[in-house]
Amino acid sequence: MTDVAGGKTIDVAVFGAGRIGRIHAANLARQPGVRLKYVVDVNKDAAASLAALHGAQVADIDGAMGDASIGATVICSSTDTHADLIQYSAAQKKHVFCEKPVDLTLERARTCAQAVERAGVVCMIGFQRRFDPTFAALKARIDAGEIGTPEMLIVTSRDPGAPPVEYIKHSGGIFKDMLIHDFDIFRWILDDEAETLHATGSCLSDPAIAEAGDIDATAVTIRTKSGRLCQINTARRAAYGYDQRFEVLGSTGMLQAGNVRPTEVVAYSKTEVSSDVPEAFFLERYRAAYAAEIAHFFEAVTQGKPVRTTVADGLKALELADAATRSWREGRPVRLGESA
Amino acid sequence: MTDVAGGKTIDVAVFGAGRIGRIHAANLARQPGVRLKYVVDVNKDAAASLAALHGAQVADIDGAMGDASIGATVICSSTDTHADLIQYSAAQKKHVFCEKPVDLTLERARTCAQAVERAGVVCMIGFQRRFDPTFAALKARIDAGEIGTPEMLIVTSRDPGAPPVEYIKHSGGIFKDMLIHDFDIFRWILDDEAETLHATGSCLSDPAIAEAGDIDATAVTIRTKSGRLCQINTARRAAYGYDQRFEVLGSTGMLQAGNVRPTEVVAYSKTEVSSDVPEAFFLERYRAAYAAEIAHFFEAVTQGKPVRTTVADGLKALELADAATRSWREGRPVRLGESA
Amino acid sequence: MTDVAGGKTIDVAVFGAGRIGRIHAANLARQPGVRLKYVVDVNKDAAASLAALHGAQVADIDGAMGDASIGATVICSSTDTHADLIQYSAAQKKHVFCEKPVDLTLERARTCAQAVERAGVVCMIGFQRRFDPTFAALKARIDAGEIGTPEMLIVTSRDPGAPPVEYIKHSGGIFKDMLIHDFDIFRWILDDEAETLHATGSCLSDPAIAEAGDIDATAVTIRTKSGRLCQINTARRAAYGYDQRFEVLGSTGMLQAGNVRPTEVVAYSKTEVSSDVPEAFFLERYRAAYAAEIAHFFEAVTQGKPVRTTVADGLKALELADAATRSWREGRPVRLGESA
Amino acid sequence: MTDVAGGKTIDVAVFGAGRIGRIHAANLARQPGVRLKYVVDVNKDAAASLAALHGAQVADIDGAMGDASIGATVICSSTDTHADLIQYSAAQKKHVFCEKPVDLTLERARTCAQAVERAGVVCMIGFQRRFDPTFAALKARIDAGEIGTPEMLIVTSRDPGAPPVEYIKHSGGIFKDMLIHDFDIFRWILDDEAETLHATGSCLSDPAIAEAGDIDATAVTIRTKSGRLCQINTARRAAYGYDQRFEVLGSTGMLQAGNVRPTEVVAYSKTEVSSDVPEAFFLERYRAAYAAEIAHFFEAVTQGKPVRTTVADGLKALELADAATRSWREGRPVRLGESA
Repeated sequence: MTDVAGGKTIDVAVFGAGRIGRIHAANLARQPGVRLKYVVDVNKDAAASLAALHGAQVADIDGAMGDASIGATVICSSTDTHADLIQYSAAQKKHVFCEKPVDLTLERARTCAQAVERAGVVCMIGFQRRFDPTFAALKARIDAGEIGTPEMLIVTSRDPGAPPVEYIKHSGGIFKDMLIHDFDIFRWILDDEAETLHATGSCLSDPAIAEAGDIDATAVTIRTKSGRLCQINTARRAAYGYDQRFEVLGSTGMLQAGNVRPTEVVAYSKTEVSSDVPEAFFLERYRAAYAAEIAHFFEAVTQGKPVRTTVADGLKALELADAATRSWREGRPVRLGESA
Repeated sequence: MTDVAGGKTIDVAVFGAGRIGRIHAANLARQPGVRLKYVVDVNKDAAASLAALHGAQVADIDGAMGDASIGATVICSSTDTHADLIQYSAAQKKHVFCEKPVDLTLERARTCAQAVERAGVVCMIGFQRRFDPTFAALKARIDAGEIGTPEMLIVTSRDPGAPPVEYIKHSGGIFKDMLIHDFDIFRWILDDEAETLHATGSCLSDPAIAEAGDIDATAVTIRTKSGRLCQINTARRAAYGYDQRFEVLGSTGMLQAGNVRPTEVVAYSKTEVSSDVPEAFFLERYRAAYAAEIAHFFEAVTQGKPVRTTVADGLKALELADAATRSWREGRPVRLGESA
Repeated sequence: MTDVAGGKTIDVAVFGAGRIGRIHAANLARQPGVRLKYVVDVNKDAAASLAALHGAQVADIDGAMGDASIGATVICSSTDTHADLIQYSAAQKKHVFCEKPVDLTLERARTCAQAVERAGVVCMIGFQRRFDPTFAALKARIDAGEIGTPEMLIVTSRDPGAPPVEYIKHSGGIFKDMLIHDFDIFRWILDDEAETLHATGSCLSDPAIAEAGDIDATAVTIRTKSGRLCQINTARRAAYGYDQRFEVLGSTGMLQAGNVRPTEVVAYSKTEVSSDVPEAFFLERYRAAYAAEIAHFFEAVTQGKPVRTTVADGLKALELADAATRSWREGRPVRLGESA
Repeated sequence: MTDVAGGKTIDVAVFGAGRIGRIHAANLARQPGVRLKYVVDVNKDAAASLAALHGAQVADIDGAMGDASIGATVICSSTDTHADLIQYSAAQKKHVFCEKPVDLTLERARTCAQAVERAGVVCMIGFQRRFDPTFAALKARIDAGEIGTPEMLIVTSRDPGAPPVEYIKHSGGIFKDMLIHDFDIFRWILDDEAETLHATGSCLSDPAIAEAGDIDATAVTIRTKSGRLCQINTARRAAYGYDQRFEVLGSTGMLQAGNVRPTEVVAYSKTEVSSDVPEAFFLERYRAAYAAEIAHFFEAVTQGKPVRTTVADGLKALELADAATRSWREGRPVRLGESA
């Protein structure tokens, strides 16, 4: 990494040229002072195509990690590679932006966190929802005291459809794969930690998901150390699309974060008044959030500021996902921190 | 009329047992201290049926007008009978509630106004919209200064469908029959009088309306003496039902009065998010307004207070309807008060 | 009771002349073929005042129950009197409309249910929410198949403020006093029975409530026998008023029931676009529902049809409230039907 | 211009480095196959700064126009330079994107149109509203027949505040400066031409505007050749910000295009339920539209397709603005095409 303050640029390697890798690559290519140097992917064609789009080169892992000019890595590869790549980056003193989750096991995730801390590099986890304009504005209004003390949080988080069962089998289960974001929202919005957590759920959309040992609809309740309450409802299948809302009841008011619609057309017919369904899925819904989180990461790196979503946040969300999995399997509330 | 203050009741005669007559009869029957004594209608069956419903008697015009115990008349008969019945009531010193319009001609309407004034009786015209909870709340907020000086008013007024052409032929034309309400809203909301008025329109839904010499869609613009602007758009046919909205732009803010929906159900389907169309027509939309205006009338009568919608308001609305008719026919703006 | 089909009327005795008694009295007085004969209340002034308003007489319990002409009783007195009055009515072969809950203990509630069944009288419990136009329309749309199979229900139920602690002490606790309605909504909307229930909660608004052994905010999760999920969030204190919403995720769509607003005014200021807060409290919010449930009761009685909210429904809701209380106290999910 | 189809790029010169010039420069710089070569502005610093941002060069008019490699010009300079630059571009066989209006006089605008036609170059006028996602979706739904025949159009167009009086003096008046966009919307949405137009207005926000011979609030009514109706209401000052809405009543339904909000936060306080005011002004409101129109222009140029907003559209909008100005000044409806 050359000195950005002196007008020089950060060279970046992106790992993973899939859907989310392409989004991060495009967003970081727009940052002043940031240059995409390498794209790394086991799928060489995907890597070459993404590299060509941004004037970058294809590299393999060692090539990218071994290049001292690389100041930061952006890890968008499959979940099972996250921990290794974070540790490799840390060892090479490269700052890291890594998609969630850090890892599917708490143990490896903790090892990553320690590696990052020892290396003194920035490590930001991609909880992009914190950068959504609506969610971020709501959080700022809570922090400004608009609703007094936040006391109750209701999170609605539904996908337009379940992923392939093959994906689900290696996903770590719905709590780690899908609710990990909602657990992070819970910690961020209530600014509190869970004391007990109760999770239940069902498989309602596809028996194959149950056969794979997972569920597709969940109902989670968290009670925090200071007695605040949080309810999360999730479904893999919402026929009307992608539904991402939450509301916070405070001691003096209430704030809701609603969905975003593609257009503001309202239609009146003989039978109904209608508007658009929400943005189709996360790529559309969180377009602005993805751009903002990458900008935030490079701003933090170049200005030496803390990042909003740290590896510690990644660990905490994973602990909640672990607790939820246990609660669901054992049919009982789980106390956070109890020995597993 | 016996002394209400002393616990006695006002006996009332209702003229007209049609749709609106039945609504007023039911509402006045609920007023404490008010008794429906007579129902008068050329259709004897309709009169008998309505009378039976409320324990009243059928009478003819002279019978009802000649009964000294009748303290007030409620006139809901056809428009061409309004003027005569108002004058008859006034001559008998009975207070009058009369449906709009006072008459189709300004001349007869003025004669009525004079008769009422000479007799010293209360005469309220049924501009029920002023009693709609939404409209009345909006007006109160303007009066409280919430939007500074009101400067521009946009009125949307659409019916679910045109009445039969036979009705239209005797209606006095769309400006007297339909926009009379909107002209009253204009005067009430902007609290100002028209200086010039421009009206145009078209016949878009049914050629038979054009053949009857009328139009079914209008666009009216009024500029007031103090330079405020008002635009009214009306249509006899809105496929989605009855649409009654207005908005007021003030110097420091804006207020909108929206439609009322039968229920607050919102539905999400694969293609849209939808809610109910507005209340079907005026009987549903203004249910609360009809009840409130009758209560207001009897309160005014028994307590000697002024009514909110006087015969003078009826005259002013009629003057605007006359001006609009002339403007449309002659294709030019009309100055209010110019000799016709 | 005289024969209504033959044009005769049902004479009714109302027990309890408080807030809800006055509402039911006014609504039943408007039913054709129904006459309010007696008002019974330990507070003689309240009874006399309500009786006078509707031309009824004051009676004591035995007087009213002993009058063979009384065909139906409407029980709006304090909760601890419900069971006795239901049984007394049943013994006298009078139909019963009783406010919720049947009783605070399942045992006495079951005794009531048996008494009613033996007597063969109609016994309707006042779960008025099922008669709310919005809720009833939503239910009808589910039944018509609009969203496929309903799979997940989210209920938001918040009061504008906690009642006095003295009231809370004798209320049976928040689950029996407040959530009893939400438990009925759950059964009605999902048309399924609970298998397991988990409840937690906190006291957030007033420590005196905790000292009285109760909580003021709850988070309940129910999993039904067929695996459907329901989450209920309640709070005694919502700074913005009375909040009564629910949403149902189905296999092919989603339906939401929203709050009702006093007016449809929308205001635009420099900083925000705003509308009314919801109707202030249950008397305003459920005005139409109270009228509809009384009409439904007398229609059922006179036409020999079943009522929508039976004493069995009252029992089921009470069982859920009992289970929730136990789950909260013991910090574990409760299986419905497990021996307490 | 080199051959784009063969993978080569169009070199572009931007005239005007002000607010809108910077937006167009940034948007065109993102188009694949398009390169910003020159920035031209009398303000050399502004030109240099914008050129530097995109790796372009500063040039003067003759330098840019004389460079045969320049395939297209983007004209964002002051209104009085539009006509000359369009004609200069046409003479040099360069395609033209020009901000509205073509010119303040119909005569010069017509000369431009002829020059463009003779030269056979593309000339697109920057009516960006047609590219707004909400407006474009609404238009597509009309074209798909969703509301039958569109019969009535209501346009609301309000700015957050009046520009400086110095600007107003050289603006050509409110009808050419502000309503020119609304006139284009009218033609586009109703797909019809005006037969008569009536305009009135007032100066309500600042007497200096009246002293400059202009008004700040207008009410325009247009009747088309086929009898359709359009009402436009505009104000220079809406206290709540930038308000850009329209609605179209069709024979079988109605479509509304609403404002866009920065976030979807809804807040409940003791007194109101509130959401964000609309996007602050045109730069925010039409961000997506500006990007889409530039993409459309270069797509048309490279693929030889027609543009959506031609110089003929610019002329038509100007004719309507001229007619409105005359109608307002003379206090009478104007027939389009009547000799001025």
